[in-house]
Amino acid sequence: MIKAYAALEAGGELRSYEYDPGPLGAHDVEIAVEYCGICHSDLSMLNNEWGITQYPFVPGHEVAGRISAVGEHVKKFNVGDRVGLGWHSSYCLDCGTCMEGDHNLCRSAQGTIVGRHGGFADKVRAQAASVVALPDDLSSESAGPLFCGGITVYNPMVQFELKPTAKVAVIGIGGLGHMAVQFLNAWGCEVTAFTSSEAKRTEALDLGAHHTLDSRDKSALKEAAGRFDLILSTVNVTLDWNGYISTLKPKGRLHLLGAVLEPMSISVMALMGGQRSVSSSPVGSPATIAQMLEFAARHSIAPQVEVFDIADVNKAIERLENGSPRYRVVLKVGS
Amino acid sequence: MIKAYAALEAGGELRSYEYDPGPLGAHDVEIAVEYCGICHSDLSMLNNEWGITQYPFVPGHEVAGRISAVGEHVKKFNVGDRVGLGWHSSYCLDCGTCMEGDHNLCRSAQGTIVGRHGGFADKVRAQAASVVALPDDLSSESAGPLFCGGITVYNPMVQFELKPTAKVAVIGIGGLGHMAVQFLNAWGCEVTAFTSSEAKRTEALDLGAHHTLDSRDKSALKEAAGRFDLILSTVNVTLDWNGYISTLKPKGRLHLLGAVLEPMSISVMALMGGQRSVSSSPVGSPATIAQMLEFAARHSIAPQVEVFDIADVNKAIERLENGSPRYRVVLKVGS
Repeated sequence: MIKAYAALEAGGELRSYEYDPGPLGAHDVEIAVEYCGICHSDLSMLNNEWGITQYPFVPGHEVAGRISAVGEHVKKFNVGDRVGLGWHSSYCLDCGTCMEGDHNLCRSAQGTIVGRHGGFADKVRAQAASVVALPDDLSSESAGPLFCGGITVYNPMVQFELKPTAKVAVIGIGGLGHMAVQFLNAWGCEVTAFTSSEAKRTEALDLGAHHTLDSRDKSALKEAAGRFDLILSTVNVTLDWNGYISTLKPKGRLHLLGAVLEPMSISVMALMGGQRSVSSSPVGSPATIAQMLEFAARHSIAPQVEVFDIADVNKAIERLENGSPRYRVVLKVGS
Repeated sequence: MIKAYAALEAGGELRSYEYDPGPLGAHDVEIAVEYCGICHSDLSMLNNEWGITQYPFVPGHEVAGRISAVGEHVKKFNVGDRVGLGWHSSYCLDCGTCMEGDHNLCRSAQGTIVGRHGGFADKVRAQAASVVALPDDLSSESAGPLFCGGITVYNPMVQFELKPTAKVAVIGIGGLGHMAVQFLNAWGCEVTAFTSSEAKRTEALDLGAHHTLDSRDKSALKEAAGRFDLILSTVNVTLDWNGYISTLKPKGRLHLLGAVLEPMSISVMALMGGQRSVSSSPVGSPATIAQMLEFAARHSIAPQVEVFDIADVNKAIERLENGSPRYRVVLKVGS
């Protein structure tokens, strides 16, 4: 039996919940969870905001732990290996996108908490292909958030072949943004943080931003016209997208990482004159995650975390929902 | 004196109009116009739809002719050279985008018919850097439309490093679209034409499309889910953009070439799942135009044109405005 925490209905409190995972699939592994991050998408799923949640619902898709069992055909892991698991816990492995290494774009990819039970539990299972080994010098406590928030901001840097000479702006210095600033700084880029909070302004500079811009100051936005090669937006609310597009250089890109549910209103003419793009992407492939972990370890990049014991899971959720954690909330599950 | 045709007010008839161009700039050339295409943007400018037209207004930015005079510092052309001139007739040549070869994105680039007199005239002047030599085996009659409509559809193929293995769809088989189909076919791509007209369906296949799809047939759009690497939209009206985005493969791009004035309503989630992009671009640089002309000559790609004598310029405009020309209208000016 797996000992988990589950909600029985939309927005419900998490309570102890045991389930029998059945026999371990031949290509799957079981992970003894040590730490599990809480991501905003855990809250969106808990509240069934996307209409795809199944109850009882066990959240958790930023897992760090150790392999506790391997399926019959699994060759890449042994019991005891330190690993992590993110948003996806299975891919078809057969389609064109999987075969090209873009597993995160696989149409048959399964979410770790979509129709499955996640990592708010002593154990969690996943297809071995979706699990990635942790480098020795990456702490388990802070590794979890790299598997969803971290890869979400790192992936576009790889996908769009970002150059170290690029000037990049980050919208929103929070759970995702504070990792984006660190990655971009280590990548060699000039990093600007858009933020309207004075406290976060200072923190952004400490995290590695070279400049900050007050996003509520319209004249600052005007002065920044034509300045950025790339803007990574980490918020999930509607902004004045065309205003931000005007701060892009020719050939610049506005890339959205937050799940904004409202349609964007985009001026074609704002894109046309400068051959600009608007795009979005979801997490990253296992190969990109592995590359990111190595890069993070080499550059001592880690999410800043507030750790709660899993017994206090509802307090931890409350902290993420209503507080302003610095910057990711992580549950300590076992050791 | 230059003998031109000009409108004196928004939407006015074109009438004979002479003007003194003054001394020829040291870096400029004068072109004796032989043929000049009429582009939809000539009509938009004539009617002051973009609010930037100055009257008297001489349209014409799809010029094919011969060099009739060169400025003091011009080395690249001699009198008599066969050349063409497109949307831009001057660049700053100093800014970062010019220095990187992206002259068409130069913020100081001047439009041939924006605050200047265009090619509906016996002569037109332009900075030598904006003028491109015509390959010997490209006819002057059909070369003009390549300099605006042609480069507009060709440029994204270069900018986004389109592969011959790509599956590409073209929205709108008209002045731009009928050239896009020819270029894409010669580029090696699988070409699909979106069109709702049975006549154009047949013509698109003749032009080199491998498939056609009825854009008004919603089930056809659904069946095409995840099919295209690139969609080039050549229309200037608002479509169901998210419907077209759904027909893109992972990493696919919807690229708009028509000057759609209404904002696009774009679903972030439609972009996110497949890491898709929406973008737009204006014409192309002189270097890309030169490359395009060579490619067009080698593959016998040419716009299909209906030729009017410049004395019938108002009839020609009427034909473009209210008829359905196949596919570009070109004025014969001199010889």
